[in-house]
Amino acid sequence: MAHIDLGVDETQFPGITGPMVYRPETGKPLNELAEVLLRGQPHPLTPGERELIAAYVSGLNECTFCCSSHSAFAAAQLPTGMELVDQVRGDVDGAPVTPKLRALLHIAGAVQESGRKVTPDLIAAAREEGASDLEIHDTVLIAAAFCMYNRYVDGLATFAPSDQESYTASARRIVAQGYSLP
Amino acid sequence: MAHIDLGVDETQFPGITGPMVYRPETGKPLNELAEVLLRGQPHPLTPGERELIAAYVSGLNECTFCCSSHSAFAAAQLPTGMELVDQVRGDVDGAPVTPKLRALLHIAGAVQESGRKVTPDLIAAAREEGASDLEIHDTVLIAAAFCMYNRYVDGLATFAPSDQESYTASARRIVAQGYSLP
Repeated sequence: MAHIDLGVDETQFPGITGPMVYRPETGKPLNELAEVLLRGQPHPLTPGERELIAAYVSGLNECTFCCSSHSAFAAAQLPTGMELVDQVRGDVDGAPVTPKLRALLHIAGAVQESGRKVTPDLIAAAREEGASDLEIHDTVLIAAAFCMYNRYVDGLATFAPSDQESYTASARRIVAQGYSLP
Repeated sequence: MAHIDLGVDETQFPGITGPMVYRPETGKPLNELAEVLLRGQPHPLTPGERELIAAYVSGLNECTFCCSSHSAFAAAQLPTGMELVDQVRGDVDGAPVTPKLRALLHIAGAVQESGRKVTPDLIAAAREEGASDLEIHDTVLIAAAFCMYNRYVDGLATFAPSDQESYTASARRIVAQGYSLP
């Protein structure tokens, strides 16, 4: 059970969805931010690539609900599905991603530790692989935002389903409808 | 200079304001979230108390711009001003705050490390001092949100003014007008 009474059946509103129902005033901008960052178009990174950054950071933060969710959302939108997500999460340097995406994942990993860990060298390496200012900006903010979402979900001790089908079902909804209040 | 070209004179748009001008699509929900969390009314915590939580977390994250900003915003809205902010940032256990606010600051400090550091004991201690579900929820989310804002500001290496007057001037604007796109 969550640390506070969210006023919902937590098995029906797991993870961040419970607090979003509990406090829609904050749920609204939290959803809008996720929608722009992860699904906004036009964008030089695909939704699958952006969800992969979110899943990677959530894994580093050991947030079960967010990592399972965004891994499923990434898998549903990447040509090689969950295999690639697992490869990136297991070994970002060996995973078969583009050099640009790998350099952006390195920036995201630095942000997860601290904003001050993002060095000019990490930025230069991403630029050398073709990353634009917008891609660098959005990578930093996606990584920073998941340092918030992960802490929000775990700081309230929300419920995380243990079956993969729950996350796969959420992925179908996100891909079809986007991020919005539950 | 910031890691990316924000398209503004950074001395005129320091810290988070530069990226908000650069990318208003994300700036909008980021401002809305800050407005609800830090200034929304009615609320059992005063804006000064909520800004104090933001300043405390930003200090733990060593984010110069956010810590200086929210310390000034807290000071402008607390009866004992910057003296109390400095006391809380220097020694949260010895500072002259209410037992409830101290217990909430302990929760915020845990969130800064990781959501998983928020223990049932920390929650129970806050409840014993009279904290409500809403106060616990908003404390967790304020702390989590500043783990985002701090990483965003520092991950892009934005400019932080070194003179106190810049932050005092921003405090006058925030108190009068609230959080909105620059």
